[in-house]
Amino acid sequence: MPSAHITFDQTGDKIAGRIRKMRPSAVRSLFAAAVRPDIISLSGGMPDVSLLPEESIRDATRAAIEDERAVALQYGGTDGRLETRQVVCGLMRDLGVRCKPDEVMLTTGAQSALDLIAKTFIDPGDIVLAEGPTYLGALQAFSAYEPDVRCIPFDDEGMRMDLLEAELERIGKGNPRLKFCYVIPNFQNPGGVTMVPERRKRLLELSHEYGFMVVEDDPYGRLRYDGGHMIPLKALDARVVYLGTISKIFAPGLRTGWIVAPKDVLARINLAKQGTDLCGSSFDQIVVEHYFTDTPWERTLQRFLSVYRERRDAMLGALDEFFPPEARWTHPEGGLFVWVTLPDYVDTGSMLGAALDAGVTYVPGDSFYPDGVTGRNCMRINFSYETPENIVEAVRRLAKVIEERLELYRVFIAAGAIKAPEEAEASENATACANSDGSAPVDQSR
Amino acid sequence: MPSAHITFDQTGDKIAGRIRKMRPSAVRSLFAAAVRPDIISLSGGMPDVSLLPEESIRDATRAAIEDERAVALQYGGTDGRLETRQVVCGLMRDLGVRCKPDEVMLTTGAQSALDLIAKTFIDPGDIVLAEGPTYLGALQAFSAYEPDVRCIPFDDEGMRMDLLEAELERIGKGNPRLKFCYVIPNFQNPGGVTMVPERRKRLLELSHEYGFMVVEDDPYGRLRYDGGHMIPLKALDARVVYLGTISKIFAPGLRTGWIVAPKDVLARINLAKQGTDLCGSSFDQIVVEHYFTDTPWERTLQRFLSVYRERRDAMLGALDEFFPPEARWTHPEGGLFVWVTLPDYVDTGSMLGAALDAGVTYVPGDSFYPDGVTGRNCMRINFSYETPENIVEAVRRLAKVIEERLELYRVFIAAGAIKAPEEAEASENATACANSDGSAPVDQSR
Repeated sequence: MPSAHITFDQTGDKIAGRIRKMRPSAVRSLFAAAVRPDIISLSGGMPDVSLLPEESIRDATRAAIEDERAVALQYGGTDGRLETRQVVCGLMRDLGVRCKPDEVMLTTGAQSALDLIAKTFIDPGDIVLAEGPTYLGALQAFSAYEPDVRCIPFDDEGMRMDLLEAELERIGKGNPRLKFCYVIPNFQNPGGVTMVPERRKRLLELSHEYGFMVVEDDPYGRLRYDGGHMIPLKALDARVVYLGTISKIFAPGLRTGWIVAPKDVLARINLAKQGTDLCGSSFDQIVVEHYFTDTPWERTLQRFLSVYRERRDAMLGALDEFFPPEARWTHPEGGLFVWVTLPDYVDTGSMLGAALDAGVTYVPGDSFYPDGVTGRNCMRINFSYETPENIVEAVRRLAKVIEERLELYRVFIAAGAIKAPEEAEASENATACANSDGSAPVDQSR
Repeated sequence: MPSAHITFDQTGDKIAGRIRKMRPSAVRSLFAAAVRPDIISLSGGMPDVSLLPEESIRDATRAAIEDERAVALQYGGTDGRLETRQVVCGLMRDLGVRCKPDEVMLTTGAQSALDLIAKTFIDPGDIVLAEGPTYLGALQAFSAYEPDVRCIPFDDEGMRMDLLEAELERIGKGNPRLKFCYVIPNFQNPGGVTMVPERRKRLLELSHEYGFMVVEDDPYGRLRYDGGHMIPLKALDARVVYLGTISKIFAPGLRTGWIVAPKDVLARINLAKQGTDLCGSSFDQIVVEHYFTDTPWERTLQRFLSVYRERRDAMLGALDEFFPPEARWTHPEGGLFVWVTLPDYVDTGSMLGAALDAGVTYVPGDSFYPDGVTGRNCMRINFSYETPENIVEAVRRLAKVIEERLELYRVFIAAGAIKAPEEAEASENATACANSDGSAPVDQSR
C-alpha cells in the first residue's frame, strides 16, 4: 500500500478551549535555549538525589524484582498497592496523622493528585482559594478545569486569615461555586513561609463556617532545618484532603505521591483516576515500599537535612552580603525555596535574559500567579540542588544583574522620570493577584 | 493542639458535573466482592507476565540503577527521556512508521495518552467517533471531557465505512464540533476484529473530506497469531495520532505508553501533560529502554505469541464445543479478546452473578458502549491470562450458565410469553449505540 501524501492543517482548530487558553511558558522556552554548562541554576525544585545511598536503591530494587516480580510488572489497582499504602500510613503517623490504607490513594506524583482533585471537584467558573503566590504546577493542574482562582497573600506566618475572611465575605456563606482552599502550609512553594498553628486552626474554622474543602499540599513537611514540627491540618480535621509525595524525601523519578482523604471523597477521585491513568506503576510502588521498609531511609533523610540546611544558610548569607538594600526576601525554616521581592519597577521576567548572560537562572515571580502579571517584581530561588559554593556565586552574579537594573532606575528616579519606590504595603484585597502592586508577601528581613 | 471533632458532609455537593455523571461500575464492585480462588477469570485484559524471563528484567533494571541511577531517580522532561523515545522510534520503524524522537511523547501508559488527547481536543458536546463497542478505558477517559461519542458498528473487516459515511453526512462537512475518530484497527478491544487495508485507506480519505483527526490506538498490533502484518494508519498519513504501549509486549506494571503525532499536536498535548503529571517515571523509562536494547525481547515476544495462540485456539475450540447454537462470536487473528453475542433477550449483566456462582467471570457487553445499554446481550472474554485447561473449563462453566438462561427463555418463547429471537441484523444507523437492538457486530461463525 503506497503512502498517501495528504496533509491538512486543521488540527489547530480542533484544540479544546481549556488548552487554547494556556500559552507555552516563555520562561520554559528561555531555559530550554540556555544549556550552557557555566550557568548555575536557582530555578529548579529538584532534590539532590546524588545524596541517596546506592546500596539502598539497589536493595529496594532487588527486593522488588526477586520477591515480587510478577506483581511489579503487572497492572495494579487504581488506588495503588495495599502494602505501599500501608507504608504511607506509617509515614503519615510520624506526622501526627492517623489513617487507614482505604483512606489512601497512590498517584503518579503529587502532580497527578492535583489534577485528579481538580478533575473531581472543579466545574468551569468555580472558585478555588489559594495562597498568592502559589505552586505553579497547581495552577497548571487547576487551569485545565477553568476555575476562578482567588489568591490570598501570605506574610511570614502563612496565609493571611484576615484577607481570607474578607474574600470569603465577598463570596458568601454556602456559595455553591466555592469548592476548596488549596494551601501549602509548610515551607510554601514559592514563598518558603510556614503557616502558624493559630492560622491553621482558623482556616479549618472558616472552612466549616463558609462550606469549603481544605486541600493541604505537603511535599516539604519533613524538610525542616530549624524549629519544631507543626501539626498538619489533616491531623486537626479528618475532612481535610492531604497530598503527600516521596519526591523530596526519596526520588521524584519514581513518581509516587498520595492523597489521604475520607473514603467517600476517594471513591469519587477513583472514578476520575480510572480514566486518567488506570493505575500507577506497580514497579515503582514496590521499590518505594521496600525503600521505606528495608533501608535506613531516616538516616538518609538526616543527610538531606544537613546538606540542605547548609545550602540554605549559604544562600541567606550570600543574600545578606550581596543583594541591594531595596531587596527583601523570606527566611525559610525548611523546604527548598527563598522568595525575593524587588522594588515595583523591576520586572524579573525581562531581567531573565541578562541573568542568563551572567550565568544564573531563577523563576520570575509572575509564574506563581494565575493572572501571569502579579509578582513581576519577585523571583523564586532554589537552594537544594547546587553546592554552597555555587549558590554563593549564583547569588553574587544575580545581585550584579539586579544592581545594574537598580542603578538605571535610580538615575530615572533622580531625574524625576519615575516615582521613587514606596514602602512595601501589604494589599488588603485578596484578589490582589490581579494587580501588579508588588505586594507579594515577605518577612521583615530588610 | 487538640484534634477538632468537626465534620461536615458537603463534599457530595462539591463534585464536578463530569464526575457526578460517572457511576461506579456495578461490575467492578461485583468483581471486587468475588475473590474466590476457584473462579477462573475471563474478564481481565492482562498479559501473562510470568512469561517474561527473570534475567531480562534483572539485567534491564540493573543497568538502570548502575549506569544511570541519578537520572533514573530524578524528574524527567515532560515529553519523556530522549533515549527512550529513540527506542520507541525503533519499535515504530518495525511496524512501517518512520518518526523522529521529537514526534514522540511518553505517557503513563496509553491510558494517560487517551486522557491527554481528550483533554487537549474535547470541549463539552464535541463529537467523537469510535467503533461500537469500543475500549472501556477510552470511554472513561473521554467522558471526563463530556463529548458526544457516536459509535460505528464493525463487522469482521473492522469499522463499517458505509455506516461511518452515513454518520458523517448527518454531522456535515467541516463541522467544528467534530474532533476525531478513535479506532483500534488491530484485534480491536473488545471485538477482536481487524480493519482491512481498503477500510483503513477509506477512513483516511473521509478524515480529509470531513475534517476530523484520526486517533489510532494500537496496543495489540504485535500480538498477531495468524496472517500478515497490516500497515498502520500512521504509516499512510503523517497527521494520524498514534498510541502505542509496552503493556502487551513487555510489562504494564511499568506504565509506559506513547503518542506519535506531528510536532504541533504534541506541543499542545505537552501543555496538558505539564498539569496532569509533570513527567513520567524516569526509572521505568530507563528500564524499558534497556529491555528493548539489551535483552532478547523479540525472542520473548515469540514466546508470548505461541502461548497466546495456543490459548486462543483453546478458547475457540471450547466455544465450538460447548456454546449453544444461539451464540455467535468473533475469530480474532491476534490480540487478547473474543466478543460473544447472545440472543437479544439475554442480559449478560444480570447473568454475571450466576456466572460467578459457577466460578467464571467475563465483562458484560454494555460496558463497551457510552450509553451503558447497548451490548447487553454481549460479552467480552479474554484468553491471554489463563492456561488452556482453565480456559476450556471456564468456557464449559459459562456455557452451562448461558444454557440455563436459554432454557428459561425457550420455555417462555414456547408459551408465547416473549418473542422468538429474530435473525441478527446489522444496524444501519451509526448512532445505534443508543439502541439496545443487539446489533453488535460479529463474524459469521455460527
